[in-house]
Amino acid sequence: MKIDLNSDMGEGFGVFRVTDDDALMGVVSSANIACGFHAGDPQIMTRMVRQAKARGVGIGAHPGLPDLQGFGRRELPFSHDEIRQQMLYQIGALTAIAKAEGTRVSHVSFHAAMGNMINRDPALADLCIAAIKAVDPDLIVFSMPDTEVERAAKAAGLKTLTLFLADRAYDAQGHLVPRGVPNSVITAEPAVRARVRQFLTEATVTTIEGQILPVRARSILIHSDTPGSLDLARIVRSEIETTGGTVAPARDVLA
Amino acid sequence: MKIDLNSDMGEGFGVFRVTDDDALMGVVSSANIACGFHAGDPQIMTRMVRQAKARGVGIGAHPGLPDLQGFGRRELPFSHDEIRQQMLYQIGALTAIAKAEGTRVSHVSFHAAMGNMINRDPALADLCIAAIKAVDPDLIVFSMPDTEVERAAKAAGLKTLTLFLADRAYDAQGHLVPRGVPNSVITAEPAVRARVRQFLTEATVTTIEGQILPVRARSILIHSDTPGSLDLARIVRSEIETTGGTVAPARDVLA
Amino acid sequence: MKIDLNSDMGEGFGVFRVTDDDALMGVVSSANIACGFHAGDPQIMTRMVRQAKARGVGIGAHPGLPDLQGFGRRELPFSHDEIRQQMLYQIGALTAIAKAEGTRVSHVSFHAAMGNMINRDPALADLCIAAIKAVDPDLIVFSMPDTEVERAAKAAGLKTLTLFLADRAYDAQGHLVPRGVPNSVITAEPAVRARVRQFLTEATVTTIEGQILPVRARSILIHSDTPGSLDLARIVRSEIETTGGTVAPARDVLA
Amino acid sequence: MKIDLNSDMGEGFGVFRVTDDDALMGVVSSANIACGFHAGDPQIMTRMVRQAKARGVGIGAHPGLPDLQGFGRRELPFSHDEIRQQMLYQIGALTAIAKAEGTRVSHVSFHAAMGNMINRDPALADLCIAAIKAVDPDLIVFSMPDTEVERAAKAAGLKTLTLFLADRAYDAQGHLVPRGVPNSVITAEPAVRARVRQFLTEATVTTIEGQILPVRARSILIHSDTPGSLDLARIVRSEIETTGGTVAPARDVLA
Repeated sequence: MKIDLNSDMGEGFGVFRVTDDDALMGVVSSANIACGFHAGDPQIMTRMVRQAKARGVGIGAHPGLPDLQGFGRRELPFSHDEIRQQMLYQIGALTAIAKAEGTRVSHVSFHAAMGNMINRDPALADLCIAAIKAVDPDLIVFSMPDTEVERAAKAAGLKTLTLFLADRAYDAQGHLVPRGVPNSVITAEPAVRARVRQFLTEATVTTIEGQILPVRARSILIHSDTPGSLDLARIVRSEIETTGGTVAPARDVLA
Repeated sequence: MKIDLNSDMGEGFGVFRVTDDDALMGVVSSANIACGFHAGDPQIMTRMVRQAKARGVGIGAHPGLPDLQGFGRRELPFSHDEIRQQMLYQIGALTAIAKAEGTRVSHVSFHAAMGNMINRDPALADLCIAAIKAVDPDLIVFSMPDTEVERAAKAAGLKTLTLFLADRAYDAQGHLVPRGVPNSVITAEPAVRARVRQFLTEATVTTIEGQILPVRARSILIHSDTPGSLDLARIVRSEIETTGGTVAPARDVLA
Repeated sequence: MKIDLNSDMGEGFGVFRVTDDDALMGVVSSANIACGFHAGDPQIMTRMVRQAKARGVGIGAHPGLPDLQGFGRRELPFSHDEIRQQMLYQIGALTAIAKAEGTRVSHVSFHAAMGNMINRDPALADLCIAAIKAVDPDLIVFSMPDTEVERAAKAAGLKTLTLFLADRAYDAQGHLVPRGVPNSVITAEPAVRARVRQFLTEATVTTIEGQILPVRARSILIHSDTPGSLDLARIVRSEIETTGGTVAPARDVLA
Repeated sequence: MKIDLNSDMGEGFGVFRVTDDDALMGVVSSANIACGFHAGDPQIMTRMVRQAKARGVGIGAHPGLPDLQGFGRRELPFSHDEIRQQMLYQIGALTAIAKAEGTRVSHVSFHAAMGNMINRDPALADLCIAAIKAVDPDLIVFSMPDTEVERAAKAAGLKTLTLFLADRAYDAQGHLVPRGVPNSVITAEPAVRARVRQFLTEATVTTIEGQILPVRARSILIHSDTPGSLDLARIVRSEIETTGGTVAPARDVLA
């Protein structure tokens, strides 16, 4: 079975870095590249695109809210139109950079608060998905399963790829436990390894309260700003390969 | 004769405005839309694109250096690669916004210091023009005549449109007199009117020292941040029509 | 009777301006100077301080939320500590600029969303007022009457000056009608003139629904970004002087 | 002998960090706190001030050029007035934050390009030092020996403290070898240890070309963004104490 391994990449700014992106690029099959609003700048984006191209890693736009200081994690009072335009701006910026490097953007993965706001609002999800389709109907939309983003993308005829988060706790409803809640971010390597194995072999996740829930996903996400993200990504890759899977970019997983 | 009348548009930010863009959009045939670095934001860009589309005005990307405080007029010590990436980022951002509005970017016009730096550096001009061509080989490059931008664009096989600046003084070499020099910016309506008429009927300009130079141009530029820009643009349009010309977007002028 | 006439000043950024600050400085007795977060930059702040000093105008800090694109009008999800620190940062910045010009900051007036958030939250008001007192216990706090800012300032032993807003509609509770509601911003000169006269002679205001409410205020505020703010300020000054009042800075009004 | 050990601190932004500031604060005697222009934000500044106060570490303003993306390392074309105002703004911001925490700013140390520009320009140095003196004549000015900053500060009657850089190579003129030149930044622990011991015991430094130069300094600086800065700082502290010195804040060193 082909499965995608993706991470948010290039989430630095100027001299700032949140992880060793260059090493991480050697482990993942898809890179969700920050596009300059919550993190990232044209130089970093270009370096990420060049590395992804060189390694056959799928290039994704990772748009976020315009909030460098809050790393795009704060929900800000933007209108639907503002969020749509912010998203378009960022996807377009990465698209041009990719084209000038002789490659292309293959997917879109929303960052943090932007994703949360879209996922809770059907009208906003439809608006943003329609805009993505207008830019490039071949773009694959990454999403958590059973969200407004997934629903809107399918309704619009866009391809989707659903995510399993190896480094975040789930609650009984299958939602992510918010950052800030104790144990919401999982950084212990054995725990990550066990969760990935359970997902790969049983297609389930054990929630923070101990229930076992089914998980429908074709891609595993490691947040690059999770402490130890590089090691965690290597563990995930090793688990995928150990259980007989093949790590492949989104387009190959869906082919 | 068809001639283009263009202006830099959307050069505000948030609540800030430098001119009445909405009214100006009713006068010009091409809009060079600021892309968020020296001015502009996703909301303003979208409004400009919508108005341009509604009025049949040609949509241009107007990339500048990332310097909102300096309005992109300060030359900053960026490398060639940095300027290339900054330019690509901005062109791409506007391209996606235009696509989502069901229209497209037709041309590129560099802003202030970014343009000055590219025009003085053949290698940088070739680098940036190659990047533009990779993004969209149909993009028309606006430039002053006999500059590195024009040379590089022609060498790369891109279409070019040369500009006459109705609101800026020329020196004996046919270069613009730098802002800050007395009388470098021309805001008196009779002076602008006379300069435009002279350009349209004789294809010449009288320099700041009084020489008469030939001018090769197919488009007249009014800076939107020149005081009274809206009235100046109306004067230019009236002069074009009075002398028997037709105001038309770049694509039609070159057709 | 001495009455203060104040306006928010220096609310530009780089080349951007929202009003003719230089002319407005000739009309007011107190200047609430934007401190670089919602508007303003070190150059503009310095020019405002120099002009205020030259004209005997009281210098006030006008701190806002860090939101240039939203002009500080959007309530953003900051913690109490964050707002306190943002406020301190800005007051301190202006204080140093004033000291280096041989003058001093005499008052603090909160901008838009920062003021709204503080005025609705007693604990935040106490926190911010305590911080102001620690910076300089002689600072006069500008506020609307009967707000948390006024209460907290008085409780802390700081001097306060209450405001009447000549260019904004009031509701039956004596609160400002929010921007965006029709007729919430009053720009017609006869209306402003009548409101000021009523305030000066009867100490009342007629609400948007027509009730007459008492107004307790020692200072009249004109927002500099209200269209025609300069003319409105001149009208207010003329009305004050016509009714026998004297326009004076906050410190003189309270003396 | 008392000697100061200082480091640039709080040079993060939002979630970004360049070092473990909290640990480093336990090693140094003076903290040069970034003030929000090249790095730092009000939250980070406040945390640094609180920690410095709790540990008896001297609090310094570390103003830089407004260039977060370039980390204040790029020389930008600002006028003398602009640099003066940028510096004042930042020193004032930290001063207010310190006051509200019940402590005070004791020194000023210029960051990177701002320092380089001031150190090469006597008029700019005099302008900035006069502004510092106007803000607080008790502020101690940190500088490299025999620079314009030191000269201007002494001429103005301000106290100065001269620096030895343990993590940067010197040339034959006693100047720092620019970043970017191979071996300009020294990160190997034995090399740093040897250099510090040589400075402490012989008051000399061996240049990048091998000459031995006398060094006049009362404080050792470790750049917090040098890789391994925390370990380097611990080495320096250990060397000072091993050679019989006492690590003390600037005010105590100069007492």
